Amino acid sequence: MANSLSGDSMTERIVRVLDTFTIDRTVQTATEIAARADLPVSSAHRIVGDLIDAGLLERDEDKRVRLGLRLWELALRGSSALRLRQAALPHMEHVQALIREHTQLAVLEHEEALFLERLSHPDAGANITRIAGRLPVHASSSGLVLLAHADPSIRERVLAGPLRAVARETATDAATLRAVLASIRRHGYVIAPGSIEAVSTGVAVPVRDHGEVVAALSVVLPRESATSAAVDALLDAATAIEQDLNLSR
Amino acid sequence: MANSLSGDSMTERIVRVLDTFTIDRTVQTATEIAARADLPVSSAHRIVGDLIDAGLLERDEDKRVRLGLRLWELALRGSSALRLRQAALPHMEHVQALIREHTQLAVLEHEEALFLERLSHPDAGANITRIAGRLPVHASSSGLVLLAHADPSIRERVLAGPLRAVARETATDAATLRAVLASIRRHGYVIAPGSIEAVSTGVAVPVRDHGEVVAALSVVLPRESATSAAVDALLDAATAIEQDLNLSR
Repeated sequence: MANSLSGDSMTERIVRVLDTFTIDRTVQTATEIAARADLPVSSAHRIVGDLIDAGLLERDEDKRVRLGLRLWELALRGSSALRLRQAALPHMEHVQALIREHTQLAVLEHEEALFLERLSHPDAGANITRIAGRLPVHASSSGLVLLAHADPSIRERVLAGPLRAVARETATDAATLRAVLASIRRHGYVIAPGSIEAVSTGVAVPVRDHGEVVAALSVVLPRESATSAAVDALLDAATAIEQDLNLSR
Repeated sequence: MANSLSGDSMTERIVRVLDTFTIDRTVQTATEIAARADLPVSSAHRIVGDLIDAGLLERDEDKRVRLGLRLWELALRGSSALRLRQAALPHMEHVQALIREHTQLAVLEHEEALFLERLSHPDAGANITRIAGRLPVHASSSGLVLLAHADPSIRERVLAGPLRAVARETATDAATLRAVLASIRRHGYVIAPGSIEAVSTGVAVPVRDHGEVVAALSVVLPRESATSAAVDALLDAATAIEQDLNLSR
């Protein structure tokens, strides 16, 4: 009943419509959405109309559409990510007060690092990360921490490649990455200079919930910065978050 | 094609499914969802299956389902609320460092105050507000600020009632509320003791984006606290947020 002639479900097509909105493209016409979602214009218009009726999209004065707050509300209100992010935020603020660059929280989502939160000092250096943005697990410091503690089947799938060079210094051979992941498990942190951007160094540690690694806490520093204060601040914050998570259920 | 026999669109039914998840109910079975969404069990199972295939829901080891991070990502990544919240967060942190209770950001959404962000001190007093939660505009300090600056047609619709008494001291007559709203427009802030909970006082100010009120910034204090430091901190923060929003586009 809900399937189109081409066999994709209505849900899939709704996701394709929502997926055309990005941090750099928050407003579109239904016709633009049709092209970007690879849907017939008539289908896109009908889906956009339904989504507007349901409050998941909103139409502005110029008949262009944007994501509705109702979608944000539905996605966040019952989300387990909200519990993690709420437990982490006060301790991220403490790291941020000490290090004054970028402090970030990421989780593993379909073999990528998905960033739940980012705090940034107004004068901080370069940082490609965005809230609700993703980075490859083999390149970002957060991703490496998540990969080090991921289910072995996920780790093997990622290491089997392809492993894209995000920057000139990104490690893209499995043997080097295996050594990095083993080091993370042994030492409890990673320092990844230049693996996402030549001008930055990522520092990340695991965050555990009842013993299981559920997130990576990281800072992004200018390339030549000292890293020991960041490692200490992150390890202290991760311990504090874990204690709060242990208390919270 | 996407409509059920009862005439509601597939999109509406998806929203009804997602709407059964709340901050206190993050995990459910498909059968529980069917009952709570008032859908036939077979329809609910099919929609849940489609939503799982699309990543908007996830199934756990016990075959129960929860909201997927993919939904969170789609809702946030292209959201204009994210821009507002990112501009506000550093200044909310500054208010929070000074006042050390609860600092909150809310927007008007379908005649209710929808809370985008909340920072809370571990030792802070009572506060009913939750991120992605709503409060009535005529009762919460944030809501009163939003209502004072809302489109007159929205204001008249709200004042026409019904106006529910959230607490014993909630103002529920239109004449009193009109005087409060006029005072907010004249003085630029509101102090609302006991209107949500007898033990708390809400203090709120408007936040403007290019001259238009787009949000309310508020703190929740224990009932008998002095309020002048909070008013000053909120007004300073609102000015700083407005300057950052003016620069950001």
